[in-house]
Amino acid sequence: MIIPVILSGGSGTRLWPMSRAERPKQLLPLTGTETMLQLTARRTMARPGFASPIIVANTAHAEEIETQLDGIGITDASVVLEPAARNTAPAIALAALAADRSAQLLIMPSDHVIEDVDAFMAAVTAAMPLCAQGWFITFGITPDAPETGYGYICRGEELTPGVNKVERFVEKPDIETARSYLASGTYSWNGGIFLFTAGAYLDALGRLEPAMLAAATEGMEKARRDGNRIYPDAKAFGASPSESVDYAVMEKAGRVAVVPVDMGWSDLGSWDALHAIAPRDAENNVHQGEVVAIDTSGCLIRTDGPLVAAVGIQDLIVIATGDAVLILPRGSSQDVKRAVEALKRDGHITLGRFTAAKAILED
Amino acid sequence: MIIPVILSGGSGTRLWPMSRAERPKQLLPLTGTETMLQLTARRTMARPGFASPIIVANTAHAEEIETQLDGIGITDASVVLEPAARNTAPAIALAALAADRSAQLLIMPSDHVIEDVDAFMAAVTAAMPLCAQGWFITFGITPDAPETGYGYICRGEELTPGVNKVERFVEKPDIETARSYLASGTYSWNGGIFLFTAGAYLDALGRLEPAMLAAATEGMEKARRDGNRIYPDAKAFGASPSESVDYAVMEKAGRVAVVPVDMGWSDLGSWDALHAIAPRDAENNVHQGEVVAIDTSGCLIRTDGPLVAAVGIQDLIVIATGDAVLILPRGSSQDVKRAVEALKRDGHITLGRFTAAKAILED
Repeated sequence: MIIPVILSGGSGTRLWPMSRAERPKQLLPLTGTETMLQLTARRTMARPGFASPIIVANTAHAEEIETQLDGIGITDASVVLEPAARNTAPAIALAALAADRSAQLLIMPSDHVIEDVDAFMAAVTAAMPLCAQGWFITFGITPDAPETGYGYICRGEELTPGVNKVERFVEKPDIETARSYLASGTYSWNGGIFLFTAGAYLDALGRLEPAMLAAATEGMEKARRDGNRIYPDAKAFGASPSESVDYAVMEKAGRVAVVPVDMGWSDLGSWDALHAIAPRDAENNVHQGEVVAIDTSGCLIRTDGPLVAAVGIQDLIVIATGDAVLILPRGSSQDVKRAVEALKRDGHITLGRFTAAKAILED
Repeated sequence: MIIPVILSGGSGTRLWPMSRAERPKQLLPLTGTETMLQLTARRTMARPGFASPIIVANTAHAEEIETQLDGIGITDASVVLEPAARNTAPAIALAALAADRSAQLLIMPSDHVIEDVDAFMAAVTAAMPLCAQGWFITFGITPDAPETGYGYICRGEELTPGVNKVERFVEKPDIETARSYLASGTYSWNGGIFLFTAGAYLDALGRLEPAMLAAATEGMEKARRDGNRIYPDAKAFGASPSESVDYAVMEKAGRVAVVPVDMGWSDLGSWDALHAIAPRDAENNVHQGEVVAIDTSGCLIRTDGPLVAAVGIQDLIVIATGDAVLILPRGSSQDVKRAVEALKRDGHITLGRFTAAKAILED
């Protein structure tokens, strides 16, 4: 039995002004009519061998998450509501403690695109036998560009068909190193998708991060339950160290394997990434929402509020909401961060209507 | 005694999305904190020899106009509220009928920029003696570019110091002709600013447009008055032909003079025009409203609603309101018309929130 564990803790500053503290990236319909969370939950929904998902999320999003899951017919998900953000390792510990020790946990970020779900499921199936033996599995994304924004995984010997031992995890490389990784053919991107049993994970935490395990365990023992919602004890869980699952466990656990998979993955980490994966018109435009564009090319124009009328512009990203408009050239969407920093510096976020942006910044 | 007559009938489609039917260009603070109407009224306010103004306006704007005039301390303006739009010649007839025959009427559009008010007033003073003799005076803007969007006035002999006979009015020229006009030094732009006595105007109308004079006269005879407001009779005034003062009178009246004047004039007929006259920063940007711009140059970014954050863009016009955002390259702001036409064609203006745009289009 596999339990999908969907991590919904991110705030997604890089997709400002759409993403806000109260409605982060995973709760937005970025690629179509369904939200990233809904698309993530759909991947394993009603699939033989898969149980109902566990969602680990921010308390503030509980109702929205349940509404979105209801919207696609999922009514029996467990929703574990973190009293504080402690990064992914403690979040997964809460989910593991809510599951049987023998259950295989399929850890998935809630805001990634996977276009080829069959390829993903085939990779999961290939990983299950080793997982049952206590291995930690990571799904390694086949790179198609020398990205410097991701960690990489170097593949070692093949353990079972399609599954390799992890030779080593490497940090985000510089561009030259990234090019050599791409050329070598033996590196994958670390996409943050994992498979391991609850028992193996908790045992590893006990060895590697005992304070974290203790905090999560006490948090769950003293948890308040309300229907499908689980509210871990705030004081207990708040005492946990904050750490990612990569650093806390995957890079230190002994038996770690990687399943290389080419599945149309994107972490939608920027507006440029959305332009790259969204359906484009003949002029390479992506228009989402009420947009009237004349003689435009290469643009991403998206609005969930005002009408946007564009004439004669090229290669721009335009994102409009009810209270903010972002404009920058396509290819430079990492500069969103500079805009948000300037907002903070210039005091715009002290205005009432920008408290949302403020909350993101302080996340 | 000069009575300023401020014509406030325009709708200003070219400044969409700021200008709307319910709040056209003249009622907006485009160049600073005061609206174009306020700046126009200020020019002659409390100036010796000038009476309180007569404003001729759309009934829908009565309250806003009075509020704006109150805001600069003008409480005794007469506001003539047209029951229907019939262009400038009948509008001026209403004002002339509200004045003494001997009064000199200084006709001013409500939405033009005049930076050098002293130069303007000197031109008016130069024109008064001929005006008192029954001449029709037009103020000819000294051209600084071969504009094809304006009518031109060819100057003839000098009648009195600084005042020339009008040789002829010419229609909007093509670019070659405009260049030759500019080179000749004997042409001015027709800026739609005039001086004539009420009596001379009404007499000319009686000869040239008797039906118009009859409609305006009956409209004023049957007018309803409410404080400083005058509501001409709708049925009577509605029977007037629709015509501009240029075609109906200025081009046909016998004794027409022009005062050439260089006074920092702009009709603010486009967003490019606003960029050209507004104070710019070292990078040639004009930012109005809540704008955060990083590494931008040559841009006009204006908002009266959402925050606009721009990073790394050049030579763009960005106009944001609460319900619409316009983006186009600087230098192409005549394309606003194409955008508005597309809105109409694609049905966006049938939405409730775009009824304002619809009203503009049907104006």
